This record gives sequence, C-alpha cells and structure tokens, in this order.
Amino acid sequence: MQEKHHVVVVGGGFGGLQLVHDLKGAPVRITLIDRRNHHLFQPLLYQVATTILATSEIAWPIRHLYRDRPEVTTLLGEVQGIDRAAKAVTLASGRAIPYDTLVLATGATHAYFGHDEWAHVAPGLKTLEDATTIRRRVLLAFEQAESEEDPARRDALLTFTIIGAGPTGVELAGIIAEMAHRTLPDEFRRIDTRQARVILVEAGPRILPAFAEELSAYAMAELGKLGVEVRTGTPVTDCTAGGVRIGDSFVASCTLVWAAGVQASPAAKWLGIDADRAGRAMVDQDLTAPDNPDAFVIGDTALIKQENGAPVPGIAPAAKQQGAYVARVIRARLDGQPAPGPFRYRHQGSLATIGKRAAIIDFGRIKLKGGLAWWIWGIAHIYFLIGTRSRFAVAWSWLWIYLSGQHSARLITQKEAQRRED
Amino acid sequence: MQEKHHVVVVGGGFGGLQLVHDLKGAPVRITLIDRRNHHLFQPLLYQVATTILATSEIAWPIRHLYRDRPEVTTLLGEVQGIDRAAKAVTLASGRAIPYDTLVLATGATHAYFGHDEWAHVAPGLKTLEDATTIRRRVLLAFEQAESEEDPARRDALLTFTIIGAGPTGVELAGIIAEMAHRTLPDEFRRIDTRQARVILVEAGPRILPAFAEELSAYAMAELGKLGVEVRTGTPVTDCTAGGVRIGDSFVASCTLVWAAGVQASPAAKWLGIDADRAGRAMVDQDLTAPDNPDAFVIGDTALIKQENGAPVPGIAPAAKQQGAYVARVIRARLDGQPAPGPFRYRHQGSLATIGKRAAIIDFGRIKLKGGLAWWIWGIAHIYFLIGTRSRFAVAWSWLWIYLSGQHSARLITQKEAQRRED
Repeated sequence: MQEKHHVVVVGGGFGGLQLVHDLKGAPVRITLIDRRNHHLFQPLLYQVATTILATSEIAWPIRHLYRDRPEVTTLLGEVQGIDRAAKAVTLASGRAIPYDTLVLATGATHAYFGHDEWAHVAPGLKTLEDATTIRRRVLLAFEQAESEEDPARRDALLTFTIIGAGPTGVELAGIIAEMAHRTLPDEFRRIDTRQARVILVEAGPRILPAFAEELSAYAMAELGKLGVEVRTGTPVTDCTAGGVRIGDSFVASCTLVWAAGVQASPAAKWLGIDADRAGRAMVDQDLTAPDNPDAFVIGDTALIKQENGAPVPGIAPAAKQQGAYVARVIRARLDGQPAPGPFRYRHQGSLATIGKRAAIIDFGRIKLKGGLAWWIWGIAHIYFLIGTRSRFAVAWSWLWIYLSGQHSARLITQKEAQRRED
Repeated sequence: MQEKHHVVVVGGGFGGLQLVHDLKGAPVRITLIDRRNHHLFQPLLYQVATTILATSEIAWPIRHLYRDRPEVTTLLGEVQGIDRAAKAVTLASGRAIPYDTLVLATGATHAYFGHDEWAHVAPGLKTLEDATTIRRRVLLAFEQAESEEDPARRDALLTFTIIGAGPTGVELAGIIAEMAHRTLPDEFRRIDTRQARVILVEAGPRILPAFAEELSAYAMAELGKLGVEVRTGTPVTDCTAGGVRIGDSFVASCTLVWAAGVQASPAAKWLGIDADRAGRAMVDQDLTAPDNPDAFVIGDTALIKQENGAPVPGIAPAAKQQGAYVARVIRARLDGQPAPGPFRYRHQGSLATIGKRAAIIDFGRIKLKGGLAWWIWGIAHIYFLIGTRSRFAVAWSWLWIYLSGQHSARLITQKEAQRRED
C-alpha cells in the first residue's frame, strides 16, 4: 500500500493551525513541527506581560488540539534547514523528515535594526517567556523603587519606556500606566506609584500608523488621559541598562520594552529564495516558493503584495487566510482539479485597545472608538480563543478586573528575581 | 512623637501571614520581608507541577494582601543575617532594618542528605519555579519519547521516579500516572503513553508514615490501581541524568523528582542558637530564641516538641497556629498583660490525595478514605485559598478536569525547552 501524501507543516501559529484544520478529511497525512509545545494567542500576549492574564489562558499544547486527528503527528523540534533535493526537513537533532508538500509558517521575531545588543535591556514580546520577563521587570522596578534611597535612581526605576507605537506598544503603555495610577497606589508605603512615568516612543510621525488618522488622534488623547507621555517623530538612538536615548536626549529609565520592529524567520534562507530587508520570503502569487511548487510559505515570514501594492500585513487574520488558501491549493492538486486563482487578502479591519475601557476599530468605511469598540474588541478576542475553557477563563479574568480593578497574575518568577534583592 | 513598636517579620508563608493578620489593630508597625513577591499556597504546588493549575491560581503578591493595612510595609529582600546587638535585620543589599520584635518564619527547602549534586537531576518542589521545572521535564520526556528511535532510551524517557512517599510524593506519583494512562494516550502517534512507568520510592517501611496504617495501606492499593509501582524499605543510593539507583539496582529513568527530605532555613544560624540535624532552630516553649525574648522563630524552621515528645510537624496548620500564638504574645506584652502559657499544638488531621478521585483523611479517631474524603479535601483546600477570585478559579479548573479529563496548564516554558529539541 502506498503511503498517503505527506504534508509537513513547520510552525503551529495561526497560519499553520488554520492549514491543518482545513486539511481535515483530505487524503493526506500531516506532520506539524514546532519548537514549542504550544500554540500561542499572540494578540493577548501583552496582557500576560501586564499581569492581567495567566500564561495558560492564552496558550494550548498543540498536540492536544489534534488528539482526534490520528493522521496528524505533532513533533517538538527545531528546524535546521531544508534539503530541497531530497525533499526533507532537517531538524537540529539530526533527524530528517521527508515531505511531499512543505508549508513553512515559521513567523517572525523582533528586530533591533542592527542593534542586537539592545535585546538584553529592551526585551520584545513574542513568546510566553518574553511576557514573563517584561512582567518581572515591571513589577521588580516598583519593588526596587520602594526600597531605593537615592531619588534620581528611584525616578529612573519609576520610568517605563515602550519603544514602538503599533498596537502592541500602545496596549502595553496603556496598561502599565493604569497599573501605576490605579491598581498599585494603595500597596506601597514609601513611593507614590502615581508619580511613575510611562513614555511611548515612536520614530514615525504618529502612533498606530495602520489606522485612520482620526482614530490615531483619539488613541493619542486617551493615552494622555491615562498619563502616558507620547513622543513621536524621534527615533531611539541607544538603549542601556540605565535608560534610553531618544533623538539627542537621554531619559533615565530602568525598564524598556521593545515593540518596534520585526524580523522574519529564516524560511527564505532555508529555501534559497529572495527576501526583503525584514527577511520575508518573496513568494509567488499562490504562496509557493519560486520554481518550487511543493513548498509554500505563509504568515509573517512571507512577503506578498495586495492589489494596492502594499504588502499583506503581518497579523493573525492574514496568516489564517493564507493557511486556508494553501489547504485549498493542496486539495485541488490531490483531486486533480485546477488550482484556485492567486491568493487575495481580504482586510477585515484593525483593532487596538487603550487601557481597560477604550479601543479603536478601523473597518475601512466604518470606524469605531471608545467603550463600544472596547466591548467589540473583547468579544471578538474571546471568540477567537481556542476552547470553551479558555473562553470562560479569559472572560472571567476580564470581568474580575473590570469589577474589582485588581490584576491577578502579578507574580515575579524566574532568575532575575532570585539574583536581585531589596 | 515616639514611633510605634516595630515588628519585623521575615517570610510571607503561612506562619508570617497569620501573624500579620492577627496583629491587626495592635499598636505596632510591621515590616514584612520576603525574597519573593508572593505568598505561595504550597499544599497545591504539586498540581502546578502536574499541569492541573496555573501558577497564578495558588500565589498572590504579598503587598496586595495588605493594601488596606497602612501600618504594614512589604519589602522584597533577601536576609543576610541578624545583628542581635543592634537589633537589626541585615539584607543582602546592605540595608539594615531595625526591629523591636523579630519573627523569623523563613521555612524550609528540600535536602539531599549530603548529596547536593542530585539537586540538578532530581528537583524538589518548594517554589513556583520548581513546579514549572518539574512540569517541563515531565512533558518534555513524553515529547522526546515520541521522537526517540532507540527503544531502551525511549523506555527510560517514559520512566518517572518520585523519591519520597509523604503526601507530596504520593500526590505527584498519582497525577503523573493518571496523565500517562488517561489524559495523554490519544495525543501521541508513535508511543503508547500507557506504557509509561511511574515509580514511587520510599526508604521507610511504608508510604505516608504520618497516617494510620490502614489509610497508608488503602493509599498503596489505590496507587496500584493507577499503575504506580511502589518500592518501600529501600533507599535511593544515587541519582544521575540517566536514572536512579534504588538499593543495589539501577533503574533507567530520565525524570526524577525529589520529595524526600527537608532542610530548615538558616534562622538558627542567624540567631546563633542550637539547631537539630535538619537545621531547625531549638526554641523555647513560647517560640522565642533562648536568651533572646525579642526574637521568635515559627513554622518549618522552628523545632518544638508536642506533649507526646514528637516534634510539631512542618505543615501549614502548625505554622498558622504558631503565627497566631506569637501575635497573642506580642499583644500581651504591649498591653502589659501576663504572657499566655507555652505554645500548644493542636493537630487537626492529615490529608492526602491519590489521583483525581480518592483521598485519605486522618483526624485521629475518625479516618476517611475514598471519594467522600476527596470532596472534603477539595472543599477544605478551596476554603483555605486566599480571595474569592482564586477560589473560583481553582474550583473551575478542578470542575473542568473532573468533567472533561483534560488538563489546561500543559505548557513547556523556560530554558530547557529552548535548548533541547526533537
């Protein structure tokens, strides 16, 4: 008996999961490789970093999602490269996984524009560990400020700088400001946490550039109400343990968070195809690698243009649409049907929240802001979570915070907490 | 104006928190020092290690608990020593905190009986990090077994050894066996997780020696039903990355957990008083250090005898009773009243669970086992959790597992996951 067509998917993010989901019932066997054992709901990762949600509320073991799909094998492993001649994925362990069709959905990480030395002092936000690192640093800064005798050092400990004002940067800045001004004041005896500064730095001319100007102006005003200082039009020129240089001026700030740039995974390099400056693989209109119809690249690690010439954005809905599209292509090929037309991205809208009461939604023609937008944002995100349990847990966590104002995930864990004292 | 009497409490465990709670309204100011920012509900820590609960469900930021008590200052810091002449606590940061009354409630950690080199391969279970380390190793062992080609190595990966059969060891073994036999089988394609071995090793003649013999025999039978191999009367003589030597025989086992011995914190050394072999400070009948009436030692780090000559056990209710007693002593002193009599421990009973359906409770005259005991155990633990939110969250997690059989906190996080692949 001939073995079924083998689809190897690398990456269990939004794109990879949508693909596996849509291949249900197709005459294939699937191997899904990821270097982590869990799928992560990245749009809410900033809430783990800001003590609102627990890690297990926004992450699920990948193999658990496919317990009822015996044709799907989940493999915890790190890809080292692709052997295009042998049609096999090489893992760091040395093992080779042969494929008939390959789909790379390996995402992106943060980029420091050639300043990788900033990574240590200004962590980005892509993994659960990143989120717990940021959470630890933010909480430790308040703890250390409480014991600090030197006023200048205390001010630096109470200054939080977020670099990059896309949705993640705006969301982080809003929640940190709310923590300092509303959640924490009663708990400290020697410092007034309301004196904390939260600075949001953006090199471009305005925050949230993917949104309409009126929404970005509204978000700016709301951030102001929360006490966030926004600095646009000035790039960060240095990040150190003691602070950040914004243009020519140095701001003493002990806690920096990087939300500015992304760098695609090495998918393009593995396949030997061209990439743009951010490392995204330049794929054909059907998301295959040039001259390699058996290899697809989807999600944040692929570069594909919309009809208006702008690249498809690196957001969850785009990755899901690409996963669904590739599933259709694979099915058509196996059925001997003509391939569907080129991939077309349908933009469904952009969402961002500012603090715990306001949000903006840009559907193109329809634009929403304020409390109603916040409720739509919340309901949409609960809907997109995986599984009844997580939906209940997140809804419950939000409701609790809404009613009590208290965050529940304020734990300092892991190494730095053990190294530093007082 | 003279400053109020200053009580410095070191350690935010059960004893320290009870003391601070019971000093409410007393004419004192309190400084509570802990090297962690959270109080941990240790009796349920094994459930974090076995993917049932999330870390934030059993830990609370200490300063949050005292937000409404302006006389309580919480300090994140590591104690380096006590300057008895100056009556001050010295922190690792160099700062000195003067006290009028000192209470050391600094707990215990695990002990390897002179074999500290085993710590790396056989982690104990005392902190949230310990719990996530054990969780990561257990989950990674299954992941690695799924990819392993060598049958001997695969068997070693699927062998889990728990050393020490007190309540923690029994509870860990029961849940790991249930995971292997009931939760995970559908999710793996190349291994049968039901083939996994869970070995519980006890040097003494029987498991759960603090319980009546009939209950310990019942627990033994229940563990057998879950597939746990129990080996009593044989000490572990070596722990390595590849396995464990039990008496003279070597068992290949990649995942070891240490639940065997405890070592008290250095409280006795700081105070310059005698300690027993486990490092517990030998205190007077009123829990003060000999010749030092202003310094109390309570909880797992104190050694005090019951009327029958046996030491007060190192469990949460004992620490709480001691905290409450010391609060009474301090109040009496400040009021100029005669001191209460010596500390008397009232044993309220011993509880342990075996898997997710059975428990044993030893109230002395009344002994319970089975399903009813499990419900009493569950309700008691939810009652003792801090705060409405945690009670709801834990009850919900348990109910979900009870109904669905699925664990929700199965995340592999932190370093080892990034270092190892496939």
